[in-house]
Amino acid sequence: MPDSTLTEHLILGIDPGTNIMGYALLKTRLRNSEIVTLDVLKMNRLSDQCSKLKAIYDGVTQLIEQYHPDILSIEEPFYGKNPQSMLKLGRAQGVAIGACLHAGMEVFEYTPRRIKQSITGKGSASKEQVAAMLHHMYDFSSESPYLDATDALAAAVCHHLQCRLDFGKGKANSWAAFLSQNQDRIIR
Amino acid sequence: MPDSTLTEHLILGIDPGTNIMGYALLKTRLRNSEIVTLDVLKMNRLSDQCSKLKAIYDGVTQLIEQYHPDILSIEEPFYGKNPQSMLKLGRAQGVAIGACLHAGMEVFEYTPRRIKQSITGKGSASKEQVAAMLHHMYDFSSESPYLDATDALAAAVCHHLQCRLDFGKGKANSWAAFLSQNQDRIIR
Repeated sequence: MPDSTLTEHLILGIDPGTNIMGYALLKTRLRNSEIVTLDVLKMNRLSDQCSKLKAIYDGVTQLIEQYHPDILSIEEPFYGKNPQSMLKLGRAQGVAIGACLHAGMEVFEYTPRRIKQSITGKGSASKEQVAAMLHHMYDFSSESPYLDATDALAAAVCHHLQCRLDFGKGKANSWAAFLSQNQDRIIR
Repeated sequence: MPDSTLTEHLILGIDPGTNIMGYALLKTRLRNSEIVTLDVLKMNRLSDQCSKLKAIYDGVTQLIEQYHPDILSIEEPFYGKNPQSMLKLGRAQGVAIGACLHAGMEVFEYTPRRIKQSITGKGSASKEQVAAMLHHMYDFSSESPYLDATDALAAAVCHHLQCRLDFGKGKANSWAAFLSQNQDRIIR
């Protein structure tokens, strides 16, 4: 019987921006997973950057204290934006990562392409396509008009699927292998 | 008699990079200040970014636990670098800021121009000129070959001088006003 400490996880996925931070908590056990919570934290009413960073730190800390996740999964952003945006984004991510490191959580990061690929099988999928696939996989209601929450969920799910692959037959290098390992994601 | 809680501070200046983080602790009381410690933390032997971020978080947390600073002063970087560098720099800063926010410290940030201006009177001064002026002001020995430590000290000193100005006659808008308010920085 596998060691349950290796197979049960609570993954915190976050998509930290400077104005809206998406977050999702995914409870996983072996190949199964369920959404614990999914929402966004809004900082757009705060005027200065330090207050926004503090809101992110406090928000992530509150999630950690309430749910006790053991893993952080975060998107490693692509580098196409302007330097000023990237600095702000980096700071927002850094503050969130800091809160998780403080709690002794493990931190994993995945490229946007890797996240999209793991969920839809296509690295160039749109945010909307990723959200649609997540709705199909988890059947959750989304009252939030923000894609930041599903982006955060996508990061958490990507880590879970990565672990599943590690437990499974090996890497899904082909479309056929991807389908055979992810029967629940075939829309029939 | 002024309230000592308003006039005594321990300012942590940090210059967080992805490979080397400079730090300085400056004890201030009214118009006086002295260096408590000044050094760098090296992360260049760590291979991945998460380990580096953890080293920054742990390093800053250790400084806070050892010295109990109440203020963080940090340089707001200029936006001339490439987006990838800025993201990494932002993350490093964010992690350091997160550790300080966790300890309930106040966070202040200053532009590089403002820091150089406050120390040398010239916003376009070089790092070496800033370091030379700091050596003149504080008479410290620097065995470290890295300017990151003096950059961190510069951020701390800038905040102190800013507070001094706030206690003083008003803003130093002219060279004459700057000199009259900073007699100790005239090299005779």
